[in-house]
Amino acid sequence: MVTVAVDAGGADLGPAEVAAGAAIAAAGGIRVILFGSAAEIGAAPAGVELIDAPVSIAKATDPAFAARSTPQASIVQAARAVAEGRAQALVSGGSTGTALAAALFEIRRDRGIHRPALALPLPVPGGSPVVVLDVGANVICRPEHLVQFAHMGSAFAHAVLGIQRPRVALLSNGEEAGKGTPDLAEVHERLSGAAGTGLRFEGNIEGTRLFDGGVDVVVTDGFTGNVALKLIEGTSGATLRVLHATAALTARGRLADRLLVPVLAELRAQIDPETQGGAYMLGLRQVGVVAHGRFTRHGFARAIERAARSVQEDVVGATRQALSAAGALRAPAGPGLVKS
Amino acid sequence: MVTVAVDAGGADLGPAEVAAGAAIAAAGGIRVILFGSAAEIGAAPAGVELIDAPVSIAKATDPAFAARSTPQASIVQAARAVAEGRAQALVSGGSTGTALAAALFEIRRDRGIHRPALALPLPVPGGSPVVVLDVGANVICRPEHLVQFAHMGSAFAHAVLGIQRPRVALLSNGEEAGKGTPDLAEVHERLSGAAGTGLRFEGNIEGTRLFDGGVDVVVTDGFTGNVALKLIEGTSGATLRVLHATAALTARGRLADRLLVPVLAELRAQIDPETQGGAYMLGLRQVGVVAHGRFTRHGFARAIERAARSVQEDVVGATRQALSAAGALRAPAGPGLVKS
Repeated sequence: MVTVAVDAGGADLGPAEVAAGAAIAAAGGIRVILFGSAAEIGAAPAGVELIDAPVSIAKATDPAFAARSTPQASIVQAARAVAEGRAQALVSGGSTGTALAAALFEIRRDRGIHRPALALPLPVPGGSPVVVLDVGANVICRPEHLVQFAHMGSAFAHAVLGIQRPRVALLSNGEEAGKGTPDLAEVHERLSGAAGTGLRFEGNIEGTRLFDGGVDVVVTDGFTGNVALKLIEGTSGATLRVLHATAALTARGRLADRLLVPVLAELRAQIDPETQGGAYMLGLRQVGVVAHGRFTRHGFARAIERAARSVQEDVVGATRQALSAAGALRAPAGPGLVKS
Repeated sequence: MVTVAVDAGGADLGPAEVAAGAAIAAAGGIRVILFGSAAEIGAAPAGVELIDAPVSIAKATDPAFAARSTPQASIVQAARAVAEGRAQALVSGGSTGTALAAALFEIRRDRGIHRPALALPLPVPGGSPVVVLDVGANVICRPEHLVQFAHMGSAFAHAVLGIQRPRVALLSNGEEAGKGTPDLAEVHERLSGAAGTGLRFEGNIEGTRLFDGGVDVVVTDGFTGNVALKLIEGTSGATLRVLHATAALTARGRLADRLLVPVLAELRAQIDPETQGGAYMLGLRQVGVVAHGRFTRHGFARAIERAARSVQEDVVGATRQALSAAGALRAPAGPGLVKS
């Protein structure tokens, strides 16, 4: 049975909502160790072990410093439970920054990984999600980082999302091989040469084609990925707002707008971010999932279920194997330089 | 009277459509010198001087090489007419790459400019457009380039779009001053210090707020800007497609969909890219406008009118003045190193 360590700090609806999510996951057969304020949560739900951890660093302005200097913080305790083998995966209900910092500090990078990445499955109505990584863990990325992200994203999409042979593409400003920065051109060349290793590399993709169903994994640096993510959110929201405002100008439009209410509700359900469980920290020794602070219990339950599935399908082992087959593992440093 | 040099090569609908656009602009009092295939265009419209230039390099795979080695190409001849003072602004109806190459080669950068940028006014229904630059001229940008882009975009939005005190922001992965790459943080600091120079710097902006009406000019490097542009296009298209597909699932939805037809037509008219004339090459000694190859005569006419307005409002002079006031002009190189 898989055990998931869950941090209840940082959720907008409070630790009790995370506990309610943990209860749903536990009812589905997952063991949960929940770290949060016992005073706010009350009695532990059935199947959930509650560790009183009232200190939250979810709002810390310097996440790395907070994670290192606050060993009693709920996220740090949860990450430590994974590092020490009491749990096999981490779920954070709070800020991405502190979750990443605590995970890096306690769980650490897997052997041969340059940098962990944050992968977000973007829901696509009527299709499987598109996994974008990195969406914010690394603002600056070198070519070898992006090469690893491609394999990490592919292994994740296969193991966790059940996509048979995930099609992987590089986000760029043109489809031709030479497009983008010199670094991207180098990544393109290296991934093109990885065909024999099981990676299904589809070349560059532009944003116009992101939702066309042609790719499953989109690789980019953490700056561009984060900007892209927020542009997608802003543009889809603005498109619907403008449609609404334009419809309001005519009687026919107003009628259409009323008739659209259930359609929009259905659409929102299909692209509900809670369905995807959150963003995934890949490249650690164990999987970590960062649920969104806005989630309800259903989103937290989903994050815990997805985290458990990541363990069952051994996404960490699959990633290691893919990187090894592609010769994309980081060369080990001399003895004493790396603690691993 | 302003004279605009227009390249008729590269338009999807052929040179005659560009000529028809030139005729509309000429009827509005603008002198046009049109460079294109006389065989395809036929007689020159009233007020338009037609120079037979049947060679087009709009499809060249190496635009810089093509521009340098094909002096008879329509875009090169049009750019040369501007460089030699026979016209005061350039309009290209073809590829961005060859237009940029020809403009750089013939018209050249203005004194003190590091790099020209490509600025695109994105139409916002019910509001003034948001100018994004650079959308693709420079894949790699240094901080001093982005600082200049801020002033160039501000001067353009004021002079050509008539926005009184344009609010300028940096596209980043967070609103706080330290967010983004180290380069972006440096640009943020330099622009924050430019308050006394007339630049209205609003700090960082995320994609979620791009269409909220809070800013007029968004500064970014040419890679991120181009990726962003295509993401905006792809996301708004996908949002409407998915809405349509979801509506088709129910009788009420199908009725809403039919009622929406005129609403969507109105929406499309409001965000019609032809209204903006195209993308603007800023930082040259004269203004250049790159109309989209897909434009009809109305888009080409608009591009010519906007180009003429840029001359009348002296966007080049205003940019020079803003950069000088901000101390952001490039230091002149020693004698003999720079031809300017």
